[in-house]
Formats: sequence, structure tokens, C-alpha cells
Amino acid sequence: MIDEIKSMIESKRFKEVKNMIHNLNAVQIADVFEELMPSESVIVFRMLAKDLAADVFSYLSSEQQLHIINTITDHEIKNIIDELFFDDMIDIIEEMPSNVVKKILENTKVEERGLINQFLNYPEFSAGSLMTIEYVDLKRDMTVRQAIDRIKETGIEKETIYTCYVLGTNRKLEGTLSLKRLIITSDEVTIGEIMSTNFIAVHTHDDQEEIANLFKKYDLIALPVIDAESRLAGIITIDDIVDVIDQENTEDFQKMAGIQPTEEPYLENSVLNMAKHRFIWLMVLMVSATFTGRIIQKYEMVLQSVVVLAAFIPMLMDTGGNAGAQSSTMVIRGLALGDLRTKDLFKIVRKELAVSVVVATALSIINLLRIVFLEKIDYRIAITVTITLFITIVLAKVVGAVLPVVARVVNVDPAVMASPLITTIVDAVALMVYFALAAVFLGV
Amino acid sequence: MIDEIKSMIESKRFKEVKNMIHNLNAVQIADVFEELMPSESVIVFRMLAKDLAADVFSYLSSEQQLHIINTITDHEIKNIIDELFFDDMIDIIEEMPSNVVKKILENTKVEERGLINQFLNYPEFSAGSLMTIEYVDLKRDMTVRQAIDRIKETGIEKETIYTCYVLGTNRKLEGTLSLKRLIITSDEVTIGEIMSTNFIAVHTHDDQEEIANLFKKYDLIALPVIDAESRLAGIITIDDIVDVIDQENTEDFQKMAGIQPTEEPYLENSVLNMAKHRFIWLMVLMVSATFTGRIIQKYEMVLQSVVVLAAFIPMLMDTGGNAGAQSSTMVIRGLALGDLRTKDLFKIVRKELAVSVVVATALSIINLLRIVFLEKIDYRIAITVTITLFITIVLAKVVGAVLPVVARVVNVDPAVMASPLITTIVDAVALMVYFALAAVFLGV
Repeated sequence: MIDEIKSMIESKRFKEVKNMIHNLNAVQIADVFEELMPSESVIVFRMLAKDLAADVFSYLSSEQQLHIINTITDHEIKNIIDELFFDDMIDIIEEMPSNVVKKILENTKVEERGLINQFLNYPEFSAGSLMTIEYVDLKRDMTVRQAIDRIKETGIEKETIYTCYVLGTNRKLEGTLSLKRLIITSDEVTIGEIMSTNFIAVHTHDDQEEIANLFKKYDLIALPVIDAESRLAGIITIDDIVDVIDQENTEDFQKMAGIQPTEEPYLENSVLNMAKHRFIWLMVLMVSATFTGRIIQKYEMVLQSVVVLAAFIPMLMDTGGNAGAQSSTMVIRGLALGDLRTKDLFKIVRKELAVSVVVATALSIINLLRIVFLEKIDYRIAITVTITLFITIVLAKVVGAVLPVVARVVNVDPAVMASPLITTIVDAVALMVYFALAAVFLGV
Repeated sequence: MIDEIKSMIESKRFKEVKNMIHNLNAVQIADVFEELMPSESVIVFRMLAKDLAADVFSYLSSEQQLHIINTITDHEIKNIIDELFFDDMIDIIEEMPSNVVKKILENTKVEERGLINQFLNYPEFSAGSLMTIEYVDLKRDMTVRQAIDRIKETGIEKETIYTCYVLGTNRKLEGTLSLKRLIITSDEVTIGEIMSTNFIAVHTHDDQEEIANLFKKYDLIALPVIDAESRLAGIITIDDIVDVIDQENTEDFQKMAGIQPTEEPYLENSVLNMAKHRFIWLMVLMVSATFTGRIIQKYEMVLQSVVVLAAFIPMLMDTGGNAGAQSSTMVIRGLALGDLRTKDLFKIVRKELAVSVVVATALSIINLLRIVFLEKIDYRIAITVTITLFITIVLAKVVGAVLPVVARVVNVDPAVMASPLITTIVDAVALMVYFALAAVFLGV
């Protein structure tokens, strides 16, 4: 389809392009745009009706948005801005360079400009930065009929009409009302009688992760945001929460891999920025791994007399690291999803001890058989390696499970305590045990 | 509050319990239940109104559900089942032992029983297993007024009324219509004129991950599910998709840590089941780590003559493993979110090469300075270690980025190709480079 559209544009068969696009929705049209050259995309963009243009615009990549804003007239910019949902506009402004922001602000109404500045000042990842102001507000003394009429009049411009907000004096939030409830109630009942006063609301500065957890727990599709005086500041809708959940998960994946979180998509991120986000942890872990090296150096004499001991170091270290990563991942994930709480620490340790003894026993037996029968190495070395392996696995699993809980207790993100750090600790202890046992069994 | 409720129950002040609970919503009441003893929870459960009881029941843990079903009368079970949403009922039945399933089925209507069996047969993780049958269906020749009247009559029992489905003969899905559109349109317009025929639908056997991606891409709150004959089989709502997103992320976290995915919450999972899910990868990786050991054994002579070389093995292996985990995590996540596609392979390799050269240069310099100035070791050893470190980091980053893409190409889950496997490959190559360089620089 893209190739067809491109050739239609080239041969100036614009009417055919228009017909083709007519059958697509905003997301699909935005997909087409990503494949077009900048010069082509402006041509197609100008074919779109005013409201569709704004909708398509909000789905484009920042790059495409920037190009279009820089090409179209101020009047056209004004049209898009008028049609955009407020939260989409804020998101777009946040991604634009300052000269473009100026151009956008010049095309908004004066009263809106103040609001935009206020929204741009909410902390990143806060309720304020997620919310939109396009909601339906009702009064408690309205009748159902009046409320429905109000929705009919104003609803088209609202991001959601499925939950309505009942406001008192000073826009204080007094209740919420689902459209479902509204529509099944008879016309003459007043809003005050049917609104829910037992609603959940968040504050403008609340963190997005906690908000996402509320949506999950209560199966919400929208949530009111209030300010310090309980006035309704805006609402958050489920589509933005789905993005938050992905974002929070990406952050955890990155932290657990020793990367400082970055929100930039992979291909759009600069090499230097990526290097910077990866460097710190690699350096910290590289330097801490030298402690492990020191232990080996300390036992240099043991190693020199039984050099084959060195051959088992990678296996012991890797298995310890992997065993620790398994339990830390399970616990970090459990904490993130709310399945586990810090008060479960004792239960977690007990469980990991049991699991690790089962796994360590099985692996130790396999390892012992392999060394004795396949490698045909002195049985005393085999025993040294096997006992070390057992202790390493149990230790790794318990440390891997405890560290994230401890992190949560002292208010550090559990994900930061993940496998890399655990690996270093487990490596060091495993080697000390290894050489100590070697000294006992081999008498070196 | 829990303690208050418990003491009220003990002293049989049931009226006070009832008043207390009256102010809570279903999720909050379910939270209270989790803290109560089984005998107490049945008492409180019987205080709830019929519809609230069903709602609370759907939020309880399987354990609590099981206890309540086993305690209450058949008539009470029937009441709950009548009030439950169909998809919640299916979820509950799937978790129950067979004698309880029998008890539940005996209390459903005959025609419903057939439908339940059909739903229980949809593959796990498919659209069929996620969908519900409580949707609003309209006809294209209805007027807006008639449609709203129909919603007023039947809407209370529907899971969502915010998207309605227009069905033709044989329940063929002809269009969708948002309640928003419906409510802002005047009474006499017919549904056929305003319904959207350009809707997105999925099939009963489609995978839940793809469905979640559609919800994200199109900002949906509900999605119709059709069968092979384009008949509407059910709908999927956003609250279930939020759970799917968490589930899919948990699965990726587990795979990347070398755990076979399990859906059981941590504390409810048995020790043997947990051990089983962790054992396979640990064993595979333990055995593959012996290849690394073989390499060390092969260069035993080198190691014996310059035993200090062994002291740097953990640092080289750990840094390689960490560097590889960083890039594999970024690429796996990018593929999962759709930011990266397999055709981006060349761009990815180019980017990782650039990033790894920057990071490796910085780390190599730090490492060289540390060895020369702090450890005061022969400069030839310092050079051997430093060059190996540089090569290991670059190699680890490129392998870490390429493997997940290759996995996707050959239709293996990229997450399975994560850090553990990459560690093994990188370890082996790093050691070979290390000893080869040692041979050159140290002449051993």
C-alpha cells in the first residue's frame, strides 16, 4: 500500500491518495506516515480533515511531528492545537525543541497558555504530568436528564465521558458517576442521589507507579486527580496507564541488567547517551570483581600446586550467578506486582532455602558423577568442587532473595539490587569456600 | 480496622460489622477477607447483598473462594453464579478442583453449562480464554432512541456498555458503536448510519500478547472477538488486558533469568514446582560452563607458569557477562515493545559496536591504570588483561544484541536467548583470547 501511495503522490494523483486514506483510521494513517519522506508526509497531512489531522498528529513520532510543525502555516498549527486533547498536547510540547514550543504557544489562547505552563511544571512521572483536563463535570442538583443533555452538548470534546465528576463550590470533587449508572437511571432522579461518594482519587504529585497499581487493583478506566484543596485538577485515563505499565517494566528490566534507566527508544538514542547509561554499573562491577581476584591471588599457592582447581572456577561462578539471578528476579517481580511484601521476608527465606536445597542436591549429584566418570579427576578434588557447588547455590538463592527485600526496607529500588551485585557477592564467598575446602581435602 | 472487625465477630456484634463494611467497596472488602480466618469470612460473606457478594467473591484468592464454596449452601452458590460476570466465572472455575467445578456446574442453567464447557476448551492465553459474553448487541436498523432504551434495559448486567456491537443475521459482526457517539447523536438517526464498519476484531484463537499490542496501539477499551464465520463470539475488556501485560512481562523476566515461566504467585507455589522450573536452565548452563573449564585446563601450563593470570579471570568473565546482559536486555525489550524489528539488525549491530567501543575504551583505561599503579603487576600482564577486557566487552555487546534478533528470526522467544546463554558464549571466547594473548605477550 505504501508503494502505491508513494507512486500516486509522485504522479500527483492526489484524489486517489485521498480515497485510499479515507478507509483508514488515525493509527493506520500514522503508520503510513512513518514510511513516507518528510516532503510526502506534509502533502498527505494537508489532505486530512481538521479533527482527523489532529488525531493522526498525536500518533506520529516526534521527528515527524517536528517536521510537520516546521512546514505548515501558523493557521494550520492553530487548527491542530485546537483539536488535540490537552494531555496529548502537553506530551508533544515536552518533546519539542524550544523554538517550536514557542511557535505552538503563540498559537494557543492566552488562558490556555497559563494552564500549559502549569502542566509543564508538574514533576515527570507524577499524576499531574499524566492527567488531562477534558472531563465531564456535573452538579449534584442536576437531574439525570440535565446531565445527559450536558454530556450531549460537551461530550464530543472530552477524552472520556464514561466517568463523570460531580463538583461543588470551588470545583471541589464531591462524587463520581459512571455513564452506565447514569444511563440506566430514570430521567428525573438527581445526580446527588446516585453519585458515588466512596471514590478513589490521587493527588497531583503522586507517583505514576502507585497510580498504575490503583488502576489494576480496582479495574478502573479513569481516575480523578485532586490538588491540595481537594479541587479536581484533572483525570487520568487507562490508555495512558497502559503506557506507564510498559515504562515501569522497561525501567525494571534496565535496572536489573545494570543500566541506568532511559526512556529513549533504542534506535533514537545517541551512542554517547547509551554508553553513559551503561558505563557506571559496568565500572562498579568491574572494580568489585577485583575483590574476587584478590581472593584468588591470596590462594595463589594452592592454585599453583593443584592448577586444575582453576578449571572449575567459571562453572562455580556462573552457576552461583545464575542461581542468584533466578531467586532475585522472582522476588523483585513479586515485590513489584504486590504479591510479596517486606513482612514476607521470613517466608521467602524459608522457601528459597527449601528450593535451593532441592536444586543444589540434584545439580551436585550430576556434577559429581560428571567429574568422577567423565573427567576422571582425583576424587578429593571432585568432593571439593561438589560441596562448594552445593553451598554456592544455596547461598546465592538466599542472598538473591533477601537483598531485594532489604532494599525495599531501606527505600532503595529492589530492581537495582539485582543479579549483577548479587553475582559479585556470591562469587567472592564461593571462592573463599572453594579454597578453604581445597585446603582441608587436599592438604595444600 | 481488621482487629475491630475480628473482635466484633467474636462478641457477635454483627450489626456493627455490617455498618463498618457498608462503607467499603468490593475490592476493599476482599482485602478485609484476606486477613480473616475461614470461619470468620463465611460469617461476613453472608452479610453481603447478593450482587455485592458476587463482586467481592470475584476479587478473593482461590483459597478463600474454595473455602466459601465448600461452606455455603447450593442456593447461595447459585445466587453468586447468577451475579458473576461470565469471564470471572470461567477464571474461577479454572482454578477450582474438579469436585467443586461439579458443584458449580450443577448450579448453572443447562444452556449456560454448554457455553461454560466451550469456554473452558479455548486454549490458555487465547482470545477465547480472555473474552466475556456480556456485551450490548444492537441491530443496524434500530434508531438511537431504541438503542439507548435497549442499553437502559439490559446494560446493568453487561461488563461494558461503552462499546456496543451491531450484529446482522447469524450474529455476524457488522459494526461497532461507542456509547459516546450514540449519546451525542440525535434520537431518530439509525445505528447503521453512525456505526463504525472499519473496526478491529480478533479471532478466538489469537494469542493474548498480540491482542495486548492492539489495545496499546489503538488505545482501545474493548475489542470484539469473532469466530471463523465472522460471528461475534465475545468481547475482551481493557481490565483483563492490563493483567495480560503484567503476565507477559513476568514471563519475560523469568525467561531472561533462566526460569521456565510459571504463573503461580511466589508464595502459593510449591517448593518442588519452583525447583523444577529453575533446575533445567541451571543444569544446562552448569554443563555448558564446563566448556569454559576445558579451555582453562587446556592452558594449564600457561596458568602454572604465570598463576597470577587466574586472578583476573573473574573480572573478565563478570564484566563480559554484564556487558552482554545490558545489550541483550535492551534489544529483547525493544523487540517486545515493537520499537525494534528484525530488519533493524544492521542498525542494532552498528549501534552496539559504537557503544561498546566507547564503554570498552573507558573501562580499559581505568583497568590499566588500576593494575599498573595499584596492583604493581608486570606491564605485560597488564596489557594482556586490558586488551582481553576490551575485546570481551565489544564481543559481549554485539553477541548480546544479535542473539535475540536471530532468535526472533527463527521463531524462538528472544527472552530465552538472554544473559545466561550469552554469558557462556562470551566466557569461552574471552578465555581463549586471554590465553592466546598471554602466550604472545608473556612468551609462555
